[in-house]
Amino acid sequence: MAKEKLYIIKVGGNIIDDEKKLSSFLKKFAALKSGDGKPVKKILVHGGGKLATKLANELKVPQQLVDGRRITDAETLKIVTMVYAGYINKNIVAILQANHCNAIGLSGADANVIRAHKRIHATIDYGFAGDIDEVNAPFLQTLLEQDLAIVLAPITHDQKGQLLNTNADTIAQETARGMCALFEVNLIYSFEKTGVLLDANDESTVIPSIKPTYYAQLKAEKKIFAGMIPKIDNAFVALNSGVKQVTIGNAEELEKLITHAAGTSITNE
Amino acid sequence: MAKEKLYIIKVGGNIIDDEKKLSSFLKKFAALKSGDGKPVKKILVHGGGKLATKLANELKVPQQLVDGRRITDAETLKIVTMVYAGYINKNIVAILQANHCNAIGLSGADANVIRAHKRIHATIDYGFAGDIDEVNAPFLQTLLEQDLAIVLAPITHDQKGQLLNTNADTIAQETARGMCALFEVNLIYSFEKTGVLLDANDESTVIPSIKPTYYAQLKAEKKIFAGMIPKIDNAFVALNSGVKQVTIGNAEELEKLITHAAGTSITNE
Repeated sequence: MAKEKLYIIKVGGNIIDDEKKLSSFLKKFAALKSGDGKPVKKILVHGGGKLATKLANELKVPQQLVDGRRITDAETLKIVTMVYAGYINKNIVAILQANHCNAIGLSGADANVIRAHKRIHATIDYGFAGDIDEVNAPFLQTLLEQDLAIVLAPITHDQKGQLLNTNADTIAQETARGMCALFEVNLIYSFEKTGVLLDANDESTVIPSIKPTYYAQLKAEKKIFAGMIPKIDNAFVALNSGVKQVTIGNAEELEKLITHAAGTSITNE
Repeated sequence: MAKEKLYIIKVGGNIIDDEKKLSSFLKKFAALKSGDGKPVKKILVHGGGKLATKLANELKVPQQLVDGRRITDAETLKIVTMVYAGYINKNIVAILQANHCNAIGLSGADANVIRAHKRIHATIDYGFAGDIDEVNAPFLQTLLEQDLAIVLAPITHDQKGQLLNTNADTIAQETARGMCALFEVNLIYSFEKTGVLLDANDESTVIPSIKPTYYAQLKAEKKIFAGMIPKIDNAFVALNSGVKQVTIGNAEELEKLITHAAGTSITNE
């Protein structure tokens, strides 16, 4: 029997910070239908770094970033736990409920959904940053089977009592990998750009499809914006682990991303 | 067939604020066994008002209390959502996981677990304070049947997209009432006192048992501390709705509260 489809959608960038854009995005997420008009199984993964930085500034907790990754000291962990697992996660869930989408918001500690360990690095101490060990796919499946949409905050735990801050893109990717034994998983990274662009300043230059050979060529010709490379590398890791399709595109075009009518599709074939 | 027992335990007062006391309490909560040594079905409801007040002070958001109830303006709602549903809820869950107790932390918005409406009051505007309409008992049951302990934060929603701040004692009581068609519910209010005291300054004067006639007598003789009266009134409301037993006592004696070897038991018979 063919596996049922599961959409794992990361929303990030400036969508979370913008009340109007977030509300419009969530309306679309709530209404997502498959080709035959049925509601679809779906997981939403959110970031929220800018709101965390804002609160850190208000509380005068200095923030340190190394290669775009936040150094998570104890005070910063408290802030991201409050902002991601509290404020953003619960507001998203409440808005989805208002849009007739029964949703449940979870951190990785809840029902041991995402177990991680404190990042070990030869030269940089990332503090309470977590690298993922395991996703509790069977439990997420029981929720999806009750027609719940799952909303994941980028907070994990080590099963020894320590919460950990984990990159939301990584949460989306590892959840996609963890779920693909049970579902046909489509992983969607939605943000404020229309997709992977040939010219970072021109939204009309979106590349509709990237396959491995073309990707190698684009990289060799330095035609891809450096910030996009980790996202695409991760997409191929996901595809090689059994994820069916990875799509990168504009959160405002969510329905089109689902039907591959917009954004950049990354595939192995 | 006899209904299975369910323990609904509110933890409040100074336990939440004290890392050591909280950790010791959660160890006991994680290990709770019934008389025959089997793990028990359990729901933990937590407050956290003092930590919210502390953060409000740091952020210079003035706090207003009327009759011990917080006036929840928009900024305060943001703070309590962060502190209750984020920081406290997720830390409790992580500590329970470390104690081999698989727990899941929820707000009332998650899976529509507790639906409420904005409080309507003739003279006082409580702001975003929620009075409870309905507890989603069947969903909580599905989680309990998966041997999950449930940790409830005192945040609800109105199903129209608005989160609401709801008193944790009320959450415990309404959850107890909502669950008693499905379980034999024992409701336990645990805090820093040993129970209902005849002399508020003497912990040895705990009243082991209160029945309606004795309660009327204690109130007539003004022998009960005023702050305790709403708790006991609520206990009788719960009992009259089908809750089996209500116990009030010291969080540090949790095992004894379960077996009625400590604290004050409130019963109708």
